Amino acid sequence: MTDRLSSQFAFLDEIDRLKAIERATPIGDNSRPENSAEHSWHIAMYALVLADHAGPEVDISRVIKMLLLHDIVEIDAGDMPIHMAHDAEAHAAKEAAAAERLFGLLPADQAAEFRAIWTEFEAAESADAVFAKSLDRVQPLLQNLAVGGGSWIDYNVTMDQIDTRVGVKVNRGAPRIWQFVRARVAPFFSASR
Amino acid sequence: MTDRLSSQFAFLDEIDRLKAIERATPIGDNSRPENSAEHSWHIAMYALVLADHAGPEVDISRVIKMLLLHDIVEIDAGDMPIHMAHDAEAHAAKEAAAAERLFGLLPADQAAEFRAIWTEFEAAESADAVFAKSLDRVQPLLQNLAVGGGSWIDYNVTMDQIDTRVGVKVNRGAPRIWQFVRARVAPFFSASR
Repeated sequence: MTDRLSSQFAFLDEIDRLKAIERATPIGDNSRPENSAEHSWHIAMYALVLADHAGPEVDISRVIKMLLLHDIVEIDAGDMPIHMAHDAEAHAAKEAAAAERLFGLLPADQAAEFRAIWTEFEAAESADAVFAKSLDRVQPLLQNLAVGGGSWIDYNVTMDQIDTRVGVKVNRGAPRIWQFVRARVAPFFSASR
Repeated sequence: MTDRLSSQFAFLDEIDRLKAIERATPIGDNSRPENSAEHSWHIAMYALVLADHAGPEVDISRVIKMLLLHDIVEIDAGDMPIHMAHDAEAHAAKEAAAAERLFGLLPADQAAEFRAIWTEFEAAESADAVFAKSLDRVQPLLQNLAVGGGSWIDYNVTMDQIDTRVGVKVNRGAPRIWQFVRARVAPFFSASR
């Protein structure tokens, strides 16, 4: 049991580093970039609050688990902004190696379980993963909107790109949420471009 | 439904401010104080990882929900370091008012549900709350240990105080975890004082 606790605390100590991984979007007062640990908390709260807009086949407790875990690979692989051009295959390989190392700090049964949940999230096929991904994509829009543009300005983003890169996917998992958020976001782009 | 989403997003936008609430303990690289949003993520991960050390009557999904919510009142009431002398009654009143205002941004059914979970956490009587509180008290010890003292030095803390203010309570909800963590923490105090 002490060995098990040693592995578990080695993992819990190591994932503290997610607090130092910066994202492209700022926090709401625009004072600094959001980090991936506080982002993970925020979208877990999105899942808790927006649960009633998920389909009946979605298990919100699993979605929350998934969202708490989903960015831990960034400790080794970094955050990749959605609007930044990049080699998707190379980045996916980096993330897979990160999942091996980081979840591998845990006892074997938990390492396998956490890796499986992360893989399910990345695949975006199960009902839980599709809803989780929808929330992960919606939150940065609200952060950017709160600060008057944020990473939309940094990456010269258009409403068409939002619809293609974000909207199509959010609409799959949470159509009512997308309708609501799109209506809030669209005026920014018609006003500024 | 749009009204419901408006209230839910008003709440989700507002709680972003938890990312600016600083705690007494630093993050693991000692570069800055931890904020309450990333702390909430970290202890939700503690619950996920350490679930097998909870009693059979503990519902880990509820514990995670509780831990995600537990610090939101700090947006209005601030964080109160455990080793800082303060007027407990006045602070509790401030937190109760904060819970009214902040959870009150949500639709009425969710406001009532979240307030009830927060009240249960604060009361520290149910099995879920006792385990959740144990994790919330253990994590700062590991943060301080990682940086060679942290808020223990700022507040001139002794091992006796750790045993009284932290140990007794952690032991109630998670005796195996306390035994393990105490053994890691004690050498710091015997070496330095």
